[in-house]
Amino acid sequence: MRAVIPFKKSNAKSRLGALLYEKEREDLAMAMLADVAGTLAGSNCFDVIDILSMSPIYLENTNIVLTEMGLNEALNEYLRKMSSHNLNEPVLIIMADIPLVSKKNIQDIVSSRADIVIAPGRMGGTNAVFIRNPLSFHVDYYGASFLKHLEIAKGLNIEVFDSFNLSTDIDEVSDLAEVLIHGKGHSRSYLEKIGASLLAKKGRVGVELRRQ
Amino acid sequence: MRAVIPFKKSNAKSRLGALLYEKEREDLAMAMLADVAGTLAGSNCFDVIDILSMSPIYLENTNIVLTEMGLNEALNEYLRKMSSHNLNEPVLIIMADIPLVSKKNIQDIVSSRADIVIAPGRMGGTNAVFIRNPLSFHVDYYGASFLKHLEIAKGLNIEVFDSFNLSTDIDEVSDLAEVLIHGKGHSRSYLEKIGASLLAKKGRVGVELRRQ
Repeated sequence: MRAVIPFKKSNAKSRLGALLYEKEREDLAMAMLADVAGTLAGSNCFDVIDILSMSPIYLENTNIVLTEMGLNEALNEYLRKMSSHNLNEPVLIIMADIPLVSKKNIQDIVSSRADIVIAPGRMGGTNAVFIRNPLSFHVDYYGASFLKHLEIAKGLNIEVFDSFNLSTDIDEVSDLAEVLIHGKGHSRSYLEKIGASLLAKKGRVGVELRRQ
Repeated sequence: MRAVIPFKKSNAKSRLGALLYEKEREDLAMAMLADVAGTLAGSNCFDVIDILSMSPIYLENTNIVLTEMGLNEALNEYLRKMSSHNLNEPVLIIMADIPLVSKKNIQDIVSSRADIVIAPGRMGGTNAVFIRNPLSFHVDYYGASFLKHLEIAKGLNIEVFDSFNLSTDIDEVSDLAEVLIHGKGHSRSYLEKIGASLLAKKGRVGVELRRQ
């Protein structure tokens, strides 16, 4: 069984630019990737963990597959290549920016009996999709990709995987609060190292950054 | 086993005011309450479903308990009264604005062996808490209540319940997209009835309202 994580390092996470410098955004993106890949490796579910990356990086327990293609093209090419090499084994596509994901989440997803397991992100996104037969599916990210993926998988046996951890992609400054509240890994350590902390607001919480 | 839902109808959901009139916000609040209470009733887990309400309402399968107290005071008084009447049965406190909650979610929560089960909301909130012994716990909502509740339950056996459905409280206009994408009940029907629909934005989705 395989897992594949699409990843973009350079100018990563531009919507965090209101709080973080470009270098910090890239470091945080790498820390989140390390959390996700480390959880995949620790789940003991996969023979191969591939990272589809636009730029050369190093991360233990993973293969870096360089690509210049966009998200959809790179992943669909990946699925097509698996099929043409007769690698019709199940594959988990998982986003690099969901650092709260747990080993139990991964084990629960891959032990589903469904043909397709889709873990929604907030606002219509798709944060993970488990594909039993890579010939049977293609991806279509952006917009309400969750609804598009349900449509693409029509006729197959679909499970919607209900998880707060998996739904929590870190895109905007306010999302960093989720890492500080629920995170346990590299991403949280990194945010604390650069001086990020929770800020009590009226009725809600926010994030502040006090650089040393 | 009991469930209790705190509820505020008048001037409900003020942050939805950018899109919805006051009457629509109240109607939506009632539709979401009906979804949550209907799911609780359909789960067949509870002998009693109480709604702690600031104003007289009617909802089938529930008892309306009128209160003039704030959220924390009303719920802590409720827990204290259960104890003083020797009703030391388990109780689920659940918010009225999480219409995506499923029967399976409820059944999974109440079948936990933990002393306290906490389902986080986004941004540090607490959207449901299951209390095996009402003498052993009190609530402290607002701010990062999730962290406060972990602290209050210290020493007890705590389970954090990982669910996108339960984490999705509907507070802001963008949250309505979650109801339109994932909802199946009264709340979604109501939003569609008044003319709300998904709007494709650059890379994300939004919500628009075209009143007839």
